[in-house]
Order: sequence, then C-alpha cells, then structure tokens
Amino acid sequence: MPTMLAMAATSSTPAGMKTPDQADSLVTRYADVRGWSKRLVEGLQTEDFLLQSMPDASPAKWHLAHTTWFFETFVLAKNDPAYQPVSKDFSFLFNSYYNAVGERHPRAERGLLSRPSMDEVWNYRRETDERMAAFLTSEPATEWLSIVELGLHHEQQHQELLLTDIKHAFSRNLLKPALVTDPLATKNMKTVEARWIPFDENVVEIGHDADGSFCFDNELPRHRVFLEPFEIASRLVTCGEYLEFINDRGYERPEFWLSEGWDAVQANDWEMPLYWQETENAWHHFTLHGRQPIDLASPVCHVNLYEADAYARWKGCRLPTEAEWEHAAQIELEKETAIPQWHPQAALDDEDRQWMGHVWQWTGSQYTPYPGYRAAAGALGEYNGKFMCNQHVLRGSSCATPASHRRPTYRNFFHASKRWQFTGIRLARSC
Amino acid sequence: MPTMLAMAATSSTPAGMKTPDQADSLVTRYADVRGWSKRLVEGLQTEDFLLQSMPDASPAKWHLAHTTWFFETFVLAKNDPAYQPVSKDFSFLFNSYYNAVGERHPRAERGLLSRPSMDEVWNYRRETDERMAAFLTSEPATEWLSIVELGLHHEQQHQELLLTDIKHAFSRNLLKPALVTDPLATKNMKTVEARWIPFDENVVEIGHDADGSFCFDNELPRHRVFLEPFEIASRLVTCGEYLEFINDRGYERPEFWLSEGWDAVQANDWEMPLYWQETENAWHHFTLHGRQPIDLASPVCHVNLYEADAYARWKGCRLPTEAEWEHAAQIELEKETAIPQWHPQAALDDEDRQWMGHVWQWTGSQYTPYPGYRAAAGALGEYNGKFMCNQHVLRGSSCATPASHRRPTYRNFFHASKRWQFTGIRLARSC
Amino acid sequence: MPTMLAMAATSSTPAGMKTPDQADSLVTRYADVRGWSKRLVEGLQTEDFLLQSMPDASPAKWHLAHTTWFFETFVLAKNDPAYQPVSKDFSFLFNSYYNAVGERHPRAERGLLSRPSMDEVWNYRRETDERMAAFLTSEPATEWLSIVELGLHHEQQHQELLLTDIKHAFSRNLLKPALVTDPLATKNMKTVEARWIPFDENVVEIGHDADGSFCFDNELPRHRVFLEPFEIASRLVTCGEYLEFINDRGYERPEFWLSEGWDAVQANDWEMPLYWQETENAWHHFTLHGRQPIDLASPVCHVNLYEADAYARWKGCRLPTEAEWEHAAQIELEKETAIPQWHPQAALDDEDRQWMGHVWQWTGSQYTPYPGYRAAAGALGEYNGKFMCNQHVLRGSSCATPASHRRPTYRNFFHASKRWQFTGIRLARSC
Amino acid sequence: MPTMLAMAATSSTPAGMKTPDQADSLVTRYADVRGWSKRLVEGLQTEDFLLQSMPDASPAKWHLAHTTWFFETFVLAKNDPAYQPVSKDFSFLFNSYYNAVGERHPRAERGLLSRPSMDEVWNYRRETDERMAAFLTSEPATEWLSIVELGLHHEQQHQELLLTDIKHAFSRNLLKPALVTDPLATKNMKTVEARWIPFDENVVEIGHDADGSFCFDNELPRHRVFLEPFEIASRLVTCGEYLEFINDRGYERPEFWLSEGWDAVQANDWEMPLYWQETENAWHHFTLHGRQPIDLASPVCHVNLYEADAYARWKGCRLPTEAEWEHAAQIELEKETAIPQWHPQAALDDEDRQWMGHVWQWTGSQYTPYPGYRAAAGALGEYNGKFMCNQHVLRGSSCATPASHRRPTYRNFFHASKRWQFTGIRLARSC
Repeated sequence: MPTMLAMAATSSTPAGMKTPDQADSLVTRYADVRGWSKRLVEGLQTEDFLLQSMPDASPAKWHLAHTTWFFETFVLAKNDPAYQPVSKDFSFLFNSYYNAVGERHPRAERGLLSRPSMDEVWNYRRETDERMAAFLTSEPATEWLSIVELGLHHEQQHQELLLTDIKHAFSRNLLKPALVTDPLATKNMKTVEARWIPFDENVVEIGHDADGSFCFDNELPRHRVFLEPFEIASRLVTCGEYLEFINDRGYERPEFWLSEGWDAVQANDWEMPLYWQETENAWHHFTLHGRQPIDLASPVCHVNLYEADAYARWKGCRLPTEAEWEHAAQIELEKETAIPQWHPQAALDDEDRQWMGHVWQWTGSQYTPYPGYRAAAGALGEYNGKFMCNQHVLRGSSCATPASHRRPTYRNFFHASKRWQFTGIRLARSC
Repeated sequence: MPTMLAMAATSSTPAGMKTPDQADSLVTRYADVRGWSKRLVEGLQTEDFLLQSMPDASPAKWHLAHTTWFFETFVLAKNDPAYQPVSKDFSFLFNSYYNAVGERHPRAERGLLSRPSMDEVWNYRRETDERMAAFLTSEPATEWLSIVELGLHHEQQHQELLLTDIKHAFSRNLLKPALVTDPLATKNMKTVEARWIPFDENVVEIGHDADGSFCFDNELPRHRVFLEPFEIASRLVTCGEYLEFINDRGYERPEFWLSEGWDAVQANDWEMPLYWQETENAWHHFTLHGRQPIDLASPVCHVNLYEADAYARWKGCRLPTEAEWEHAAQIELEKETAIPQWHPQAALDDEDRQWMGHVWQWTGSQYTPYPGYRAAAGALGEYNGKFMCNQHVLRGSSCATPASHRRPTYRNFFHASKRWQFTGIRLARSC
Repeated sequence: MPTMLAMAATSSTPAGMKTPDQADSLVTRYADVRGWSKRLVEGLQTEDFLLQSMPDASPAKWHLAHTTWFFETFVLAKNDPAYQPVSKDFSFLFNSYYNAVGERHPRAERGLLSRPSMDEVWNYRRETDERMAAFLTSEPATEWLSIVELGLHHEQQHQELLLTDIKHAFSRNLLKPALVTDPLATKNMKTVEARWIPFDENVVEIGHDADGSFCFDNELPRHRVFLEPFEIASRLVTCGEYLEFINDRGYERPEFWLSEGWDAVQANDWEMPLYWQETENAWHHFTLHGRQPIDLASPVCHVNLYEADAYARWKGCRLPTEAEWEHAAQIELEKETAIPQWHPQAALDDEDRQWMGHVWQWTGSQYTPYPGYRAAAGALGEYNGKFMCNQHVLRGSSCATPASHRRPTYRNFFHASKRWQFTGIRLARSC
Repeated sequence: MPTMLAMAATSSTPAGMKTPDQADSLVTRYADVRGWSKRLVEGLQTEDFLLQSMPDASPAKWHLAHTTWFFETFVLAKNDPAYQPVSKDFSFLFNSYYNAVGERHPRAERGLLSRPSMDEVWNYRRETDERMAAFLTSEPATEWLSIVELGLHHEQQHQELLLTDIKHAFSRNLLKPALVTDPLATKNMKTVEARWIPFDENVVEIGHDADGSFCFDNELPRHRVFLEPFEIASRLVTCGEYLEFINDRGYERPEFWLSEGWDAVQANDWEMPLYWQETENAWHHFTLHGRQPIDLASPVCHVNLYEADAYARWKGCRLPTEAEWEHAAQIELEKETAIPQWHPQAALDDEDRQWMGHVWQWTGSQYTPYPGYRAAAGALGEYNGKFMCNQHVLRGSSCATPASHRRPTYRNFFHASKRWQFTGIRLARSC
C-alpha cells in the first residue's frame, strides 16, 4: 500500500500525516477519524473554509459541520428524546440530501454560510465529540454502534471530498495557493510495462460478505455474477501514456467518444485532464502542493468517464465492468500479501499493481442496485439507493481516501462528466 | 399477438392498416416496408409534415427523407462510385448523427426545412426506390443485402418515431388533430389479475444467437448471465393501477423517487403521465385518434423511467433487469404458442401476457455493451455503441412497432426522463 | 421616394409590386391593404407558411391570421354582440400580446400550428373580408372607422414583419430559397459624399399634430423639445463605409462598444452584419432574391443598435436622438418637395437623402412615453405603452414598409440586440 | 438632511456612525473617506468579507481592495513609472470593468478570493494610504488632484454597494445576521399627506454647472431641456401606501405592468418588495439590523423599476423624468434652506421632502448621454458612458449614500429589474 508521502508526489495529498488505521476500539476510532478531519485542514486560513467553487463542491466548513450533524441527528438525538441540540439552527443548515429529515439550505448556496463562524463550528464539533464520548462509554446497544460506524465512514467520505473541493476552489485563484506547504518529496515513479492479467469464464461472487466488518448498503448482498473471459491491466494508465492520446489528437476525433462525451468536449473545450496546463517546454498541473511539473510515470488523474472511455477505445480496449474489477482485485490483492518483502516484485508493488490508494478507477458499469438490494429504513436509506441512475461506478480508492476506508467491494460513483475527484483509468479487454 | 386494431384502442395507432410481415423476399420486403411508411402518413396534411415540437423529435418529412438517404448513402452510392445523387444537397440535409459522413443540418432546426417540399421528398423516395429495385434485382453480393436489411429495420424504427413525434406535435395544438379519423374500435379490456411468474437461480443465455435472422449490433454476442432467483409480473401495469399511485399522492412523496427523478418532477411539475388530463368527472388522454377517455384496464403508457421506478417502489417491487426480462420472455413466449386456440387461456393472452406489441417496458438496466460487443466498422458503427451512456434499456415493443421489427432480444433505449415514446411498466421482485 | 424596384436591389423586397397608396376611401383602402398581404406571399409554397425560425419571428400563416383576427375581434365582434366567429378557436390561436383579450397560444410555438391549414386561413381571411365589406358599406359610426384604420396600419406593420421573418427563416436553409424569383434589377448605386446638415439650438415641436391623419398613440401628443445645436448626416452609412469599420478590426476593439454590446459580440461571435458572408474574393449577403453580391454603395442593413453605436463612435460621431431626427427630417423632407424634377439634385435624391424607404434608422433614444402620453383604453391600449422599456427607437422606414404606412413621426422600436429587421445607420454629432 | 440614525430606522444603515462631510482639505478628506470604509465593516467577521451572493454583488473584501487598486493604478503607478506595486497580482485580481487595463478576474467568482486574506488586504490599504499621503503632501499637479477626488467618490460609491451587497448576502442566511447590533432607535415616522408640487412649462437647465465642485462625467454638460407642465409629489411613497397596492392584487394584474416587468413578475414569483415577509399578524423585512417590523410610514424600499412603474400606473400617475426630478429638486432644496428652524414646517422636513438621503428614486428616464457628453480619455472613460444602454436613471440618494457624495445632479443607474439597492418611488403626473 503506498504511503501518503508517495501519494503526495502523485496527486496532491497533505504529506506527513498519519492515517487512523490502527484504531482498536470504537472510542479510539471515533477520536482518530474525527481528529483526522482536523489535521487535514491545518493548512487552511479562516476564509478558505467558506470556499465553494461550484454547486458540486461544498465548503470545508460545511463538510466539518455536516459530518458532526450526522452524529447529533442520527445518534444523540435519536437515542435521547430529550436531547438539546448544540444549536437548533444547525439541523437545517447542515442537512445535506436527507429529504426525510426536513428542509435543507440550498446546496449551491453553502458558500454563503459565513455564519455560523468557524469558531462556532469548531465548538460544535468539540461539544458533539464530548457528548459522543460520553455516549460511547455508556455501553450503548449494538444497533447504535453500527450507526456510529456508519457516521465514521460518512466522515471519511467527506474527508476525501473536502480535499477535492478545496483543490478545485484553490485552482480558480490566480495565486494558486497550496494546502500543503511541506517540501514535496520528489520520488519520481518508474514506468513499469503493463501486463494483461487473464481470467477465465466463471461464476464469481462479488459484494460484501457481511462478515461483521463495515460496508455501505450498496455493497450488499454478496451475489453471483457470470463473467465471460477477460483480461485486465496490471497497472493504471500513466500521465505519459495519456499524453500520447492527446498528442494523437484524441480530443479532436469523434470516433473515440461516447456521443454525450463528444458533445461535452465541444461544449467545454476540453483538451486535457482537469488541472493540466501546457507551457512552453513542459506540462504542469495544479496540486494540493500548488503548481507542479507532471510526473509522466504517475497514474493519470482528474479524467472523467468520457475521457477514460475514449482513451480505452483509442487503445483498442475498454474499461472493466465493476464485477470484473472486483473479482480481479480480490485475487490480485491476495497474491500481493504472499510476496515476501525481500522479493524484487515487492519493490514494484507500488507502481505495478495500484488497486488501492492511487486514483479511483472508472468502470464501464453504470450504478445500479445489486440483485436483492434493500435500502436501509428511514432517512439513512437515502444514503445510496436514490442515486442509482445515470452515475458510473468507480472502484479502488485514491490517495485521498483514508486507509481504513478502503476495501475491494467499495462502490464509489460519480456522473460521467465529473473530473474534480481523484479519478483515473485501468484498461480491460474481452478475450 | 394483438392486432393493430386492438392497439388503437390502447394507445393510438392508425387502425385498419396491415403490417408488412409476410414479405418472402428482400425485393418484396423492401417494397412493403417502404410502402408502410407512406400509408402511415396518409392522414397528414402538407403542413403537418414540417412539424417539429421539440429537439428530440423530427418532422415526418425528415423521417421520410432520412430513411431514403440511408439507402442512397450506404447502398447505392457505396456500390457505384459513379453514382449521381438525386440531389446533392440532401446528403447534408438528411444525415442524422453519423459524424463520419460529414456535416449535418442542426437537429433542432429540422422543422425549418420547408424546402425541399414534400413533393420533392416524395420524388426522392420514388426515384430512390426505383434505383433500389434495379439494384436488388441485379443480384448484388450478400454483404449488400445485410446493409439493405439494416436499412429496412432502420426505416421501421423511424416509422415508430414518426408516430410518436407527430403525436407529440399534434398534442401541442389546441385543435387536437387526429392522425386517424376512422371510428375508434371501443374494445375495452378487462383487467386480469396479475400473477407472479417465478424463476430459479440460473446461468442463462441472452442476446441474439446469430442464426441468420436480423439483429442490431447491440444485441450481440449471445452470452451467459447469472440470474439470482426472481419473479416477474404476468402482465403490464394498467392505467387503473397507476391511477392509484397518483391518488396516493405518489408524485408528492420523495421517498419513492430516484434523486434525479424527484428533481425532474419538481422542475417540470409532473403530476401524471404525458397526455393525460383530468377533467371534472373523468380522465382523458390525447391519442392519435384525438382526445379519448382513458380505458383503465389498458396498460399505462407515456411514463418515463423515473415514474416507472417510483411506481415500482411504491408497490414494494422493482423493475426487471434486461437479462431477467429477456430470459422470462423467451420462456413465456414459447409457452404461449403451445396453448391451443380453443383453450380459455388463449382468449386472455391478449391482456394477460403483453410481452410484445403493447408498450415498451422500462428495465432497471442502463444501456451498456454486452461482453465482447464490437461496433460495426465505419459510419454504420455509429449506430448504437456511442449511445451506451446514461440511457435505460426498454424491452418488448409497442403498438407502434411494426410486427416484423419485434423480437425478444431487441434493446431499445431512451434517457430516463423521456415520456413521448409508447413506454410502460412491468414489475419484478427478488425472492 | 425610391421605388420598390430600386429597393429590391438594396435589400430584398418583392420587385414589381405596387404599394396601395392611392386608396381614396376606406373600403378601397381596406381592399388594397388586405390584397397587398396576399401579393407579398405569392412566392411562398404551402409549407413555407409555417416557418418560425426563432421566438421573435412568427410564421407567415400566423401574420395572415392574426391581422384578420384583429378585425374580427375589435370591429365585427365588438360591433355586434350576437356575432358568430368564423371559428371560435381562432380567438385563442391568433391573439398575440393582448393580455386583456384572454389566454394566448405560446408565442414560441406558433410554428406548430399546422392546423388550421392555409386553406382554412385563406378562407378565414375571405370570410372576414366579406363581413368587413358589408360592415364598412353600412355606414358605421366614426369611432369604428378609426379602429378599422388602426387595423389596416396594424396589418401594414405585419406586412413588414412577415418579410423580415420569412427572410430569416429562409436564411437558415442550406438551399437558400428566394421569395422573389424575378430577375434582379441591377441598378447599382453611386456613393455620394455625405454632408453634415447643421441645426441651431431651438425649441422645436415633435410628435404627430393630430390633424386627422392616422398615427399610433405613441406619437402623441405633439410637444416641445429643446435641441442643443447639432449636425446630422445627409445620407445613410453605406455597406462600403461599414466594411472599413470591419477591416479596422471594429468588432475586436472594446473601446467602441457599449458594455452590453461588447458582451453580446463575444457571446454571439458577431463579426459582420446579419446575412453577410465573406467568400474568397467578395462579400455576399442573403436577400429575398436569394444570395447576392453586396452593393457597397447601398445603405448598410441588418445591424443592431450595438453595431450602429459602435460604428458611430469609431467615426467620432454619435447616433441622432429621435427628436433631432424628426426635426431634421421634417425640414429636409419639406425641402425635398421643392426641388423640380428637372433639377440635377432631384436625380440624387434617392441616394442622397434616404430619410424614408431604405432602412430603419437607429436613434440614440430609448423608447419612453412622450410627456402627456396616454395609452388607449382597453385591449388596444396594450399596443404600445407597455413596451416602453429597454427598447430603442428607430425612425424613417424601410424598403419593406408600405408607402402609405410611412411618416416622419413614426416611432418604431426594437431591442438593442436585434438585427433581423431592415435596420441601418445615420450619423449625427453635437456642435 | 436626515441623520444616519433616523435612516437606520428606515432602511438599515449602521447607526452611530459619522459621515465624513467636514473634510477641509484633500488630505483630510482622503483620510476621512478611507477611514469611513473601515468603520462600515466593523460589524463583519473575517468570513463575512468573502460573501458574494450573486454575480451583481461583490464581497466586502473585493470592494475594499478594488477601491485601493484605483488609487494605486490611476494615481501612484501613473505618476511614477518606476512604481513598485504592493503586490503585482492585485492589478489582475482587483480590476473591475476597465477593459483598457488588461485582463480581469471573472466577476462572478470574486467570492473565491479567500487569498489574499483580509490581513493582506488591510495591509494593502494601509500601505497604499501611506504612499498616497506622501504623494498628496508632495504638492502634486492639479490634474492629479482631480483623479484623487474621482477615486474618493469612486470609493464612496463602493461604500454604498458594500452595504447593499452585505445586506443581500446576510439575507440568504437562515441566521439573519445583523451588521449593526446597536439597539435600533425606534423613531417611527408619521405619515404626512403628500401634496402635488406644480411646475409650469419652461426651458430649464440641468446637469452639473462645472463650478469646480466634483461631478462624474455623465452629469456634464449643463444643458437646456424643455419641460411641459407637470406636478411632482412632495414626498416618497410609503410602505403603507405600497401595501395597498399589494392588497389590491397589484402583482396579479397585468394591466399595470410593463410587458417586460410582467414577464419578470411571473418568472420570479414576485409578490412584494425584496426582503419583505408576511407573517401571521404583521409584515417584517430584513435590514442591516436583522429582521425588523415594517414601519408603514417610512418610504418603501427595495422595489425595482417595474414595481415603481406599476405602482405609479395603479395610482393613475407616472414616474418623473430625470429632468423633471432635477429641476424640482433644485427649486425645492433651495426653499428648504429658507425655512427657519423654529417654523413648524421645519420639523416635517424629514418626512415631507425626502429629496436626499432616504432612498434612490426611480425615474422614467433611461440612461442616455447628455447632449454634448464626452467620455474621459483612456481607462477612466470606461467609467460611465459604456453603460448607457438599457439602464434606468435613479435620482436623489439613499440612507447608505455618504452625505458628501450626494448632489441633485447625480445620475445613478441600474437595470430595471434590480431590487437590492435602496430604491423607492416618487410620483409625478402631467398636467
């Protein structure tokens, strides 16, 4: 698994931070996850917390308050009918998409919430954390624990969104601010030749196996899928490879593009991944370390589904389905652990496998429910199911995904046109 | 198979027309399909041919010319390098979405093509048909025959679109014109109780088996799919059943709706299917016979995917996947033929089964390529593959689908928000 | 006054038509004006009557029916409470902007009115004309006569709009149809040097003097205006002069443009007047005679207020106010009549004065009520007053304006961004 | 002249602030005006400075930096070719609409400028003020002094905009923050009966007389205008009077509205002035003191031109032209000074006259250049002239206008649809 430090070189996460993956109890884990949110924003100045650069994104302040609102609303208030909220206005201000929990502040106007101030939001977090600590040490019923666990994974999702959103907002500022000002560890990757990993036809199982470890409802139930024979690439597509597509006029040739993608290319004048910039002698991109030269051996990032799909067609390949991806990842990740540290292959793991922790990997699968899927009851049921339309599934995880939030059954999803997440490409082909 | 006459009662196709399903040679079949296009528009006046009521729709004139352009461009001109077009302007005017064949007249402005006149377009059809007749009787190579066959199926697709487009345009006119003015056969349907048809878990085959009969490239290749156990309804959802959803405030309760669907309901003030109208004591809808009372026993029509999905959730069910639908249809359609005509069940087939010929049936599957799918080479390869993004698959066929154009492997597709096609609902559920 | 024939060379009106300016009674005048509408559309084919190429424009069918609706609604039906309309649907379909007369068919969807057919609309006109003839010969009260007169001027307005609208619609068709197919009289104009006509400071009177001749309510009351000294150009800006502005990169230099105009130039990629086209060696424009070479000595046409204003600034001048224009025109038009036909000056009148009958002339005045203005009561009061906001006044008249509809007090008005009318430029400057 | 304290009761300006109107030298005046900007924002918290609630509005930070940029760009840098800017990025970030001074940060994205921080912007102001103080005490040429004076009036304009923009932004926040938290002086106004002040026909002079006192270029030159006889109301329309219009269904009756206004009413669901809210038993509005009950005797505020015009038509009146307003104000303001303080009339001045310092007063005049108007050369010429299209003139001044920035010749202008400025209504009528 690549370290955050290595990641920083790739695509821009705060260096020198420790991910909270050794939590051995929910109390500790709660403190770790919540503390991690705080560490992520250490590089922000007060005004930065308010930035919202597009309706898709939210201000850091909102992320920090909304994740707190989750614990207050779904744990503390539900558990105690006499619960007194830290502020009764916050349930309106920091609700997100839960129609069942009442009215919401308009999403596109979250950047107008200069009040409550960050001081008040920090206080909201502190106060809620104290109440949660008291609650968690009071030996609550198991059903509560799973909601707390859900809340922590919810916060981890927002940790990633917070980073992608602040990156987007900073990129629109001429001053090109850096979230992380540590010197950048310049560990340039070497490009390893990609191999095709073959898989025979098979009935395979995918989905979470409900072994007690956490998952979202959309990963359930574990079920069978028939896979025709296929091959999947041993590593991600690199910036250098993607540059060949650009140089081959990939953005100007409709034959590689989905119809909707081609329309979007024309309408938005897309010519390269988001944050890329061509200067006289070199390519640069905007990162959380500010503007940096592009390392051609690193995985291409900030491409959308249309770009990923067009690149794949240009190569005569396609994107993997999510079932293919998950099956391949399960088998390959098991292999990985079997490689002794002294083995030369181990040193290459970083660049060569990249199933996790680099960039989210677009699949050719649109986001639909698994057979037998049932949404949770009540407001928490709004978490996933209602978005199962016109979104594409992404698999793996990115450098901005907390390590304890990564798993091979995870189904991330975004609209085909979105590019501001840490999203990249792994190729596949039918045999 | 229901007759067109019965269909007219349901949802509005010209009564008294014969479908061209006994064609025993390509020459005959060519003449039949082309002649059918002409018969469909017998009820139109000269100005009606120009109507375009939205960018999604095209004028009848355009449908009639574009289908002719197909034969001229992909058969006559390709076969003979010295070919002289009927009019050299038409290749620009009547190209649709084939980027590879050059520039196009803007889709949203097809309603501005008062020139060429309908007289000229009829002449274009006549002249092309004569050239095609000469070509087809000249014993062309087999590869040409399959392109001619494709052209005929292409024309049959446009026959259905022509009807849905003219229905939409007429509905916007206060005078509520009728395409068909024959007296309406008022054969009201009886509602038969819907049954659940169970299917065990299984690896099944779907897709066209490439036995020589025609199919589009998106139906290939035949491949294996694992189905978890499921049940599918024995008939379509009726207008009467859908009315219960409306009366239960289905359009006002977000918990039944996909997130995108709920936004669309709000933005468009949808409260009922397209063309429905509530008057003092009754429900009416606009049809190709003009405004008519709604037969509550007939299948609900002109609902989009959002409405179909919301209805299904309200019933505690879901939509079938396209694999489930195709597998069930294959088995049920085989059964159907085994019922002797004297059997009481036979009389109910019409209302009870409805796999084909009533309304297209939304599935829960988004439109993605089958494993091993390969688009055709050249311009004809733009026919299907490039639309495989953010569309939903519909199965079966509608009363407006020519009988020889129907088959269980057919993959129709539209965007989730579209309602102007003859689209309805069949329920399914996991076991 | 230039003939229609000369005009045809300039900017596109049917040649060889006689304007109805010798009507000596209202009965005759009614027949003449109504007949003229019919003559204007002799070059149209049935489908052309339905064309609507933008929401600002209306189909010819609609113009022909709406002007008829005016007589039926405001004369026949108002005069006789028992009046039976030719068709009761038409009052809904062919109402335009009269809120007081009930609901309206949406303006942007007039192109969907394939029904009623043109046959029915011609019948509507014929029937209404017979009823009007009977009414007018029945010696109606004087108050009715003035409404009939208003109706005729209303129809004359629509005659001009009909021509501009059909020109716009035809221009969008690759086939570039011509309304007028007579051979074009190639009477190229000679450019006469423009002179500055000076005017001293003065209190002048403008507005219609209510002498019994017809005017719209917005030309009333005649009132006094103080004019500081100014000069106005003796003729219109020519295509050749405007071309110098283009060649001097006028469309690329923000310093000449109103802020709103500059934004519009960017948003619409305007680089030249509407209908102009630059080819290898020459400039062409689309006219009602089809595509024609541009006569550089003719007045520039199809520019909007932004372009007129930018041209004027580039020349170090400005546009005249409407008071300046009207005052100058009154004095100059009186002079004109004093020139004997044998005088050399007479021969130059055509090119040299151009107050009337060439192109509408943008003024620097926004359209506001005259002091003491009162709108007519009832629905007819909606004719003018409610549009007195964010429109600019144009003065003079164009080649498409019927001669009996022209007068120096006429206040035409359009939004600053509109270019599809026959609109041009006369310069002025302060002393 | 009403005090700011009285104003606060009316419509929401910081109470207890002194306006800088006794400045006796440019150095003092510079310090006063610049200091006033700082005092205005004393109630803001750090994050509030970044708020931008619509593209029309700008963040307080931007106002504070842009006004500073003006002095740096047009005085310091122009005066000294070797000038070193405080930050070279700021000339890009804080340019507003001066095309001639190079590229600009997109207006709608000013809310993304979290960097530079407010600390840096305060430092930018401090540093610039020191340099300006040095410059002003160095006895610069007179031509520079007039640019400095322009810069100060420019800053005073932005002081008013800053208040209207922050009011708008705060109004969108559920917490309804108050800029001013001092207890509100509840000095309820008494409604004084409005009188009609008559004026005979006359040639009058309007425009600034260039006596050495400051004015913007759009107030020049002083020139003659002929006024037909008219009457103008002795005071502004009150909230109570406007409420009668609302209660008479004024917002539902198209006959009172300009066509464009009626469309806007429908599109925006306008039913009352901006910031008004009807609760069970009372009307409230949002002010810079937070949410407050409406004082019915105070002038109605936050109406746009459409509403002002519709109200006037409903009353059978009209809005004054700007010439009528200026002429009447000149005469009435002279009278005002003649009333001895002991006279009973004096006590009523506040409510009875209201020419200045309450709300900007919509006129019926669109914003066009005065005869003989010449824009200043260079970038400063972009200040006014290029906006002279599709804007309406407002006269007087509001409670948010610094006293030394008010004068009867002042031509404020906004688009007819805008309501977030302190804008109200004075009636007029023709005789």
